[in-house]
Amino acid sequence: MKKLATALALGALTLAARADEGMWTFNAFPKQKVAAAYGVTVTDAWLDHVRLSSVRLAQGCSASFVSGQGLVMTNHHCVEACLEQLSTAERNYIAQGFYAKTLAEEVRCPVLEVNQLVEIRDVTERMKKATAGLSGQAFNDAKKAESGKIEEECQTSPALRCNVVSLYHGGIYDLYKYRRYQDVRIVFAPEFAIAFFGGDPDNFMFPRYDLDVSFVRVYEEGKPLQAKDFLRFSRSGPRAGELVFVAGNPGGTSRRLTVAELRYERDILLPERIARLSELRGALVEFQNRGPEEKRVSQGLLFGVENSLKAFKGRREALVDREFFASKVEEEEAFRKKLRGDPKDGPAALAAYGAIEQAEDLRKSVRFELADVMGSAGFMTDYFGIARTLVRGAEERQKPNGVRLEEFQEAQLPAVTHRLFSPAPIYPEFEIFKLTWSLTKLREDLGPDHPFVKKALGAEAPAELAARLVNGTKLKDVELRKKLWEGGAQAVGASDDPMIAFARLVDPDSRAVRKMYERDIDSVVTKGSEAIAQARFALEGTSNYPDATFTPRITYGTVAGWQEGKREVPPFTEMQGAFERASGRDPFALPKSWLEAKGRLDLKTPFDFSATTDIIGGNSGSPVVDAEARVVGLVFDGNIWSLGGDYGFDPKLNRTVAVDTAAIAEALGKIYGASRVLDELAPVK
Amino acid sequence: MKKLATALALGALTLAARADEGMWTFNAFPKQKVAAAYGVTVTDAWLDHVRLSSVRLAQGCSASFVSGQGLVMTNHHCVEACLEQLSTAERNYIAQGFYAKTLAEEVRCPVLEVNQLVEIRDVTERMKKATAGLSGQAFNDAKKAESGKIEEECQTSPALRCNVVSLYHGGIYDLYKYRRYQDVRIVFAPEFAIAFFGGDPDNFMFPRYDLDVSFVRVYEEGKPLQAKDFLRFSRSGPRAGELVFVAGNPGGTSRRLTVAELRYERDILLPERIARLSELRGALVEFQNRGPEEKRVSQGLLFGVENSLKAFKGRREALVDREFFASKVEEEEAFRKKLRGDPKDGPAALAAYGAIEQAEDLRKSVRFELADVMGSAGFMTDYFGIARTLVRGAEERQKPNGVRLEEFQEAQLPAVTHRLFSPAPIYPEFEIFKLTWSLTKLREDLGPDHPFVKKALGAEAPAELAARLVNGTKLKDVELRKKLWEGGAQAVGASDDPMIAFARLVDPDSRAVRKMYERDIDSVVTKGSEAIAQARFALEGTSNYPDATFTPRITYGTVAGWQEGKREVPPFTEMQGAFERASGRDPFALPKSWLEAKGRLDLKTPFDFSATTDIIGGNSGSPVVDAEARVVGLVFDGNIWSLGGDYGFDPKLNRTVAVDTAAIAEALGKIYGASRVLDELAPVK
Repeated sequence: MKKLATALALGALTLAARADEGMWTFNAFPKQKVAAAYGVTVTDAWLDHVRLSSVRLAQGCSASFVSGQGLVMTNHHCVEACLEQLSTAERNYIAQGFYAKTLAEEVRCPVLEVNQLVEIRDVTERMKKATAGLSGQAFNDAKKAESGKIEEECQTSPALRCNVVSLYHGGIYDLYKYRRYQDVRIVFAPEFAIAFFGGDPDNFMFPRYDLDVSFVRVYEEGKPLQAKDFLRFSRSGPRAGELVFVAGNPGGTSRRLTVAELRYERDILLPERIARLSELRGALVEFQNRGPEEKRVSQGLLFGVENSLKAFKGRREALVDREFFASKVEEEEAFRKKLRGDPKDGPAALAAYGAIEQAEDLRKSVRFELADVMGSAGFMTDYFGIARTLVRGAEERQKPNGVRLEEFQEAQLPAVTHRLFSPAPIYPEFEIFKLTWSLTKLREDLGPDHPFVKKALGAEAPAELAARLVNGTKLKDVELRKKLWEGGAQAVGASDDPMIAFARLVDPDSRAVRKMYERDIDSVVTKGSEAIAQARFALEGTSNYPDATFTPRITYGTVAGWQEGKREVPPFTEMQGAFERASGRDPFALPKSWLEAKGRLDLKTPFDFSATTDIIGGNSGSPVVDAEARVVGLVFDGNIWSLGGDYGFDPKLNRTVAVDTAAIAEALGKIYGASRVLDELAPVK
Repeated sequence: MKKLATALALGALTLAARADEGMWTFNAFPKQKVAAAYGVTVTDAWLDHVRLSSVRLAQGCSASFVSGQGLVMTNHHCVEACLEQLSTAERNYIAQGFYAKTLAEEVRCPVLEVNQLVEIRDVTERMKKATAGLSGQAFNDAKKAESGKIEEECQTSPALRCNVVSLYHGGIYDLYKYRRYQDVRIVFAPEFAIAFFGGDPDNFMFPRYDLDVSFVRVYEEGKPLQAKDFLRFSRSGPRAGELVFVAGNPGGTSRRLTVAELRYERDILLPERIARLSELRGALVEFQNRGPEEKRVSQGLLFGVENSLKAFKGRREALVDREFFASKVEEEEAFRKKLRGDPKDGPAALAAYGAIEQAEDLRKSVRFELADVMGSAGFMTDYFGIARTLVRGAEERQKPNGVRLEEFQEAQLPAVTHRLFSPAPIYPEFEIFKLTWSLTKLREDLGPDHPFVKKALGAEAPAELAARLVNGTKLKDVELRKKLWEGGAQAVGASDDPMIAFARLVDPDSRAVRKMYERDIDSVVTKGSEAIAQARFALEGTSNYPDATFTPRITYGTVAGWQEGKREVPPFTEMQGAFERASGRDPFALPKSWLEAKGRLDLKTPFDFSATTDIIGGNSGSPVVDAEARVVGLVFDGNIWSLGGDYGFDPKLNRTVAVDTAAIAEALGKIYGASRVLDELAPVK
């Protein structure tokens, strides 16, 4: 019945879907549009409830409260790092899954942080005033100082996280105030084999058969959080054609970039990132062949690399589409034409296009310095991250808040120390592998005669230096990190730890490049984008949504498949399909638990589904809710066409991919015997 | 003194160099231009002598006769495959070098083939007549049949190699008749560490300190070839500013491509190749960490991958240069404008631009099928190459010559069997590694549900299938290959060798895609390019040189450095520089022989030099000769700017990089005690 229902729904959808584009902020949701298109009234109370029920995982995912005892539902791939960190050679939670039969068995994740958006305040005027008439370094400094001040004023406790968020590329500045939770414990996760059934070949594809779900619990003062707002759980999932909403944190989109910026992405950023990640992937896959333990400890990084790779390839595919790129060029031409008739904001905006193009040219010419000297692409080991945080933290914390590097301003410190003092395990062999690899790339990018390369490598070969630093450092010891952090500049300066010494050695160069970057590139693009945004507001109003910025957004659409050439892709799969697709070989091997439970399952249970909602990376773990704010699905992916969504939403092809809550209930009950979790999920009233 | 000489020379050069562009055919060398610019008369006898003294290595390099006893000088990296094939775990000629102290110790290379161009004949009229009025498959078939016929008529003995060569993208068809030599023996090669000092970091860079030289000897009927034409050897090398010529076989350039073709290279071909090779490189470097034997057997492939990678990156860099690409667009626009005023050839040429653009769009949409189904990118193992040759060879040789696949036409068979029956070693572990990798990429490119992927993989995982095929095949046995080749269709069809069975399984799909490719893409582009070339000839004459096609060419220029930003790069390095650059760590470690000989050397001996000659990949091993046809250098590289030379020659920056013959003489005599070779080199009269 489902297939037919969809076929009928599709025809009707085509026009409606066109209007469904948009990653809306919770305080500017287009209620009238939804009412007009669907006859559904979205109230402010509904929006508040959904916002407070939805959370962000600070490490880069979305999630939602699904019980009054702090139970949070997200993707398996959003807690994979936690599972990896809690695993050992003997006890592999990635391979075997995890289930805490009792509350006492729930285990704290070393790094997870949950953020709940409790308040939004407009601070545009304050920000504009602070930067009025400034440019270059002065513009950047003033912006940083003012946002630091606003955040510091807001953040009256480490339990809060305050961020000044730039929306519409600086058209609006909002202060986002989050409730921060750092005690997050793992409750349930299925086996990797079913969470990511089909693996990289099926990633960003649909039809799919993945149970990419996990549950964690937020604790407050050692006890489960009493959550006032949470989503009720539908055991039957959504219907084809049904209006649904996705609340989550899309990481970033580039729909409003200038053509100069898009060209940089198309010609430089994306192809070079893809090549670099491809090389790392090749090395990692071979590293895993060293043995099962090497495979286990590098699994998370490999997943991340492959996931990014596929996403970047999809984005590139959109930009090298001749017609699509030409449409972006035309769009900009048309807007610039309008600007030429706008004596107030036009001249500044037109000048901004030229300034941005120049900045992009500069970015191109110094891109390796930006990645390898300013960033730390050349030093890919957790130890270097720790060492740099200690070295910089010590120096920065001596300064007044407003002039510090942004990531060491007061409002950021709780997140910094949460990561810094994490007991997550670190494996020397893998660290040496990563550092050797990245030092080799550093030398390749800049050339062996670059002064920075000579300084970093000295007379040593990359593998030599990597082994010396990793084997010599004592930073595995969390207590030592605490001592150095608390000891400040004196303690860090006196340390003879080789990784600390190395971080000290390379830091001045890194800071110098960063200064140049902020002065000559970042501030130019930011200021230019603001000028363009301002002119756009004046000409077109603010009825549109801003580019995504990894802040809470809500999007709406319907449960629907799509037309792939001549083939129609239906919006639902069933559990049965997983058994049909299984070949017994990784990544198409079902776990034992599934093979054993097969007879007990209702194989017609809807498994995964697709919807027209407008999402992007960062939305992983987002709840799909119906008009009554009941969770009916769990976003875990988009189809291949969703990747071009970075640059524009194509309603005909772009689809969200989600796990059906019906499948989650079926699996928890009949496969995993996880009645404690299933029973806790508040049933739909 | 040298530095000063160059500084003076440079100013004078700038204008002259602009005229030095061009990879000229030997029968259309611009003698007047050279006479006008340099006051040097190049005679036909001189050109014939240099052409006959220069040779092509069929595997992809250039070289030259340097004695009357068949001694041939080329690069170390041109015989690296031979050295690898002759090495064993115990006797590593790559690491240790090779020197045959007596004629008897010279060892035959398993695959090397030397080609000497003895005659050029214009066959344009015959080719045009054969294809007149045809298009698509018919055009392609007629072209193939006619060139096959011409080649067969020409090739009266297996010692000849006849190729119909398309020049100016089909503007001219010439028959190139080569004398073919397949008994080629290794005489001398230095250690890899000095042949490729600086390794990948220094590749395509200058200043350089590489002794990238080797000597082989051509044998005829078991005896050293009595070579009538050979180059005399200068022990002092060239002077800065001196007029020099490079005779060699540039592999391919794209200077006359349409914008649609260039856009395909910029947006699709280059970035995707770079990403794929990067991944392979990452995997290979890690594969080498398995052990010294794995490192040894995979060294050649890794070098090839890294070399291609750097070359592709350089080419991409040229195409993503906004101004450069814009100049290509403008150039084409200007030419199309001219065409609109040309009633004779204009309409066909203008239509060709549209047809080529459509063909490029089609190429984009089927590119993975082209690479993985038609080509054999998905089956990267020597065994598959052998199996496919046997399967196809058996089928094709039953057909009349004119309708065979081109590579199995009569004229090609001596080269085919030379490779097929080569005793070069094959290492199972490495073959499994390569085949696993490429099968994984095949599945990734086409997706696990593609019918071809299902057919090729069946229910097996890539690693499983790879191991089964490689461990099961008996094709290591050269006698078995000969039996199957001679047994033809019946023997091959009856074989139960798993690799043969696999090649039989996938061949129909591969042939079907190839048919589509030839009909809808290749013939459209070829015919379109011919139409454009014809119009160009009519409008602009044939005073220009054709794009490179791995056929013998001659280019001229001067020994000169260049201006790199504010820094002036002098044209010569000295042997001393190698000792200064050496860090003792690979790839900057000098071999023991050099460290021991240091005291005996004249450290002021010029080592490597740069010149303004117009070369590209394939020119490796080319002799640099002076106006008296004396060899003064050995081309082994270009600078980083030479890589953009694929699309256009920039006389300010593009430089050839060569080993100075003075350094070759110094090293042969004082480091290697290779007096037998040194004495044989005919001194300059």
